[in-house]
Amino acid sequence: MTAEVARLCKKSMESVSLGTKEENIQHGRDYYKFLFTNYPELRIYFKGVEHYTAEDVQTSERFEKGGARALLAAHLLAETFENQQVFKAYVRETINHHRVHKMDPALWLEFFTVFVKYLETKTAVNEETKEAWAEMGRVFNAEAQAHLKNLNLPHV
Amino acid sequence: MTAEVARLCKKSMESVSLGTKEENIQHGRDYYKFLFTNYPELRIYFKGVEHYTAEDVQTSERFEKGGARALLAAHLLAETFENQQVFKAYVRETINHHRVHKMDPALWLEFFTVFVKYLETKTAVNEETKEAWAEMGRVFNAEAQAHLKNLNLPHV
Repeated sequence: MTAEVARLCKKSMESVSLGTKEENIQHGRDYYKFLFTNYPELRIYFKGVEHYTAEDVQTSERFEKGGARALLAAHLLAETFENQQVFKAYVRETINHHRVHKMDPALWLEFFTVFVKYLETKTAVNEETKEAWAEMGRVFNAEAQAHLKNLNLPHV
Repeated sequence: MTAEVARLCKKSMESVSLGTKEENIQHGRDYYKFLFTNYPELRIYFKGVEHYTAEDVQTSERFEKGGARALLAAHLLAETFENQQVFKAYVRETINHHRVHKMDPALWLEFFTVFVKYLETKTAVNEETKEAWAEMGRVFNAEAQAHLKNLNLPHV
């Protein structure tokens, strides 16, 4: 089950390969263009650029770097899912790293829906693969909320 | 070859498992205790705590967190090595993240020697496994130095 979820998620990530070529960099920008276009209410978490449009994101060095980081993070989740101790440690580190943004804790689960919709702009995502990402999201979220609770931070 | 390096490195990482239990947290502290004891000249990179002894590290919240991060990073290297595009993207992100510390670029390769010596305080590491970590270090270092060069930063 865990191995199959990992396999399906890794397979779907092949559509957004990482690298230093322009096409790789564009995949990262496209993630934030998708987010800013379809979830404009989440722009509040991007201090100083809350008013950015997709066109602004396209030409922004901040989002070129941020996009590469976000895509790498998604790849790391897919690559580590089979080794649950590493996956969960990466979840906790992700929570620690985002602490400063004071995010609504409900967003951690929502990310997985958003990300699959982004992937669908890049490749066909079948139902089995969507369910794999949803399962990964449930495991991620359980660890994330438990860690937030341990840190005495808002959790759901 | 790549798969075998990944397998050996992952296997050796089982001796420093990640988690929220005291024994897991101690593995992280022990990494920095090992570093501060055996490579005191590297303490210059830890602003404000350059004078710390191993005993100071043991009781430091900074090194409790830092240790967990360092061990997770080593696990992520082992977990991603088989997927070279993800491994190399993680190398670049690691370089970006450490930019502020203005590290001697020669240290990136040296890390792999230091880390294996740390692992040897936890488990027996055979020659085959040492060679696997050395090979990973060569791949890491090649990407690291190329990325430093692209960023117009000191490289070797």
